[in-house]
Amino acid sequence: MTGKHFIEDFRVPPGQRVRLTNFDPAFKGKHSKTHALRKTQELCVTMGELQQNFFAERKRSLLVCLQALDAGGKDGVVKHVIGSMNPDGCDVANFKEPTPEELAHDFLWRVEAKTPKRGEIAIFNRSHYEDVLVVRVHNLVPKEVWSKRYDQINDFERRLAANGTHILKFFLHISKEAQLKRFEQRLDDPAKRWKISESDYTEREYWDDYVQAYEDALANCNTEDAPWFVIPADHKWFRDLAISEIIVAALQSMNIQVPKPTVNIEDIRRKYHSAAKEGKQGRRKRRARS
Amino acid sequence: MTGKHFIEDFRVPPGQRVRLTNFDPAFKGKHSKTHALRKTQELCVTMGELQQNFFAERKRSLLVCLQALDAGGKDGVVKHVIGSMNPDGCDVANFKEPTPEELAHDFLWRVEAKTPKRGEIAIFNRSHYEDVLVVRVHNLVPKEVWSKRYDQINDFERRLAANGTHILKFFLHISKEAQLKRFEQRLDDPAKRWKISESDYTEREYWDDYVQAYEDALANCNTEDAPWFVIPADHKWFRDLAISEIIVAALQSMNIQVPKPTVNIEDIRRKYHSAAKEGKQGRRKRRARS
Repeated sequence: MTGKHFIEDFRVPPGQRVRLTNFDPAFKGKHSKTHALRKTQELCVTMGELQQNFFAERKRSLLVCLQALDAGGKDGVVKHVIGSMNPDGCDVANFKEPTPEELAHDFLWRVEAKTPKRGEIAIFNRSHYEDVLVVRVHNLVPKEVWSKRYDQINDFERRLAANGTHILKFFLHISKEAQLKRFEQRLDDPAKRWKISESDYTEREYWDDYVQAYEDALANCNTEDAPWFVIPADHKWFRDLAISEIIVAALQSMNIQVPKPTVNIEDIRRKYHSAAKEGKQGRRKRRARS
Repeated sequence: MTGKHFIEDFRVPPGQRVRLTNFDPAFKGKHSKTHALRKTQELCVTMGELQQNFFAERKRSLLVCLQALDAGGKDGVVKHVIGSMNPDGCDVANFKEPTPEELAHDFLWRVEAKTPKRGEIAIFNRSHYEDVLVVRVHNLVPKEVWSKRYDQINDFERRLAANGTHILKFFLHISKEAQLKRFEQRLDDPAKRWKISESDYTEREYWDDYVQAYEDALANCNTEDAPWFVIPADHKWFRDLAISEIIVAALQSMNIQVPKPTVNIEDIRRKYHSAAKEGKQGRRKRRARS
């Protein structure tokens, strides 16, 4: 199974300013839910196999950034897509409100600490982009500070890429109505409603500000090395299909090479296994006789 | 599905010295492979649900230590059992040969850094026990150093437990023959044979020394707070069944409580959702009329 088309369809065109209103969050193409769920499952199996080889190769790393407005589905992607990989070699970093120590450093300090090692995959659930999103929308630092961060982010991502980190950035695009519907589902779910706060709702008043901040981030930090994808996310099953297909396509495009053995396999076989085999055959012969 | 019996059957009796030769690594009881695989899958679903609540509760943490001789199945458990949990909130720490910086600190320094936060689960793939196992077998530090570590480990684990960390320690018990068979399977598997080294084989000469070191660790560091389990591991499917059942039983015994909402759910519903609903009903009525 290869999946090349989503990686082109949902890629933000480099050098262009996107208008999120032109992207339909409820897009699902010709896909049916049943078929998409099955295909996603297949893609997840492929992803797991590719990850095993990627880990063995230990030459490059993969960084996946997940960004979205509340209830956009970041946790769902972690659980349903990322969860299909081997937890060894796949780390999830959550960037929540910074601690005092994190705030005492520059905004990329805590991010740097979570970048993936060679052979490993890091998932950023929220990321350094919050520092040009929530921080900008709520004026947490002055404009002359956040406005310089786009270039700083580009420099940072360029250096990561030049040192072997493949970067994929996903904006999970939901509609304001879909968000409200998901909030309501949370109210009904005893396992989830503990995390509801009034601010989930008051934050909706800033919706347009967030859209503008996202449009700037998508325009200013969308390089060949660190592309943005806008993923239609009103349908969870379509979102998971698109993301798993893009991750698989990205891993496939890397032409991963499992390292060669450092020992002579046949020598090892002769030296340590043939005696045991002869022993076994000997026993088998004896049994056959008895 | 509850699973109480393995948590008793495979628990090392506290205060006793175990002889590993008395434990059958090929034990599988009355279980068939087909049934065990299905039951393990069910247990993994239950484990995932319990983990979600454990994460929400954020009061306690869980530390799972996996120890075994080479090819004992630690990686398999991580992939097949631990992999069923949400990677967010479940961290795998691999303790390999210590770095110079780690060696410059005491042996528990790097371990401390990987202990789980409240609400999270840490899996140690190898652990601080290596410091009384490989270190002892190969005389990497003098006896007067490693022999004091049993007490230091007990103190460390007691403190973790007293601060809300539930500890489960699994020794995956395989036979020397099963190990050789697995090494041979690796030779045949292009995805795995790159990691074969001659030392995998020469290390087998120390088998009895390892058994003795394990028996001492199991006897000296087997407290009520941090119990050891000896898991028959010649059959991978049985090993996964036993471990998933024990983890599920441990989580169930904790009586996990999802926190209560901090807001009044009905107030939120009225304030933010009823208007939207009335709007919808209004539209529905209008449609019905037209």
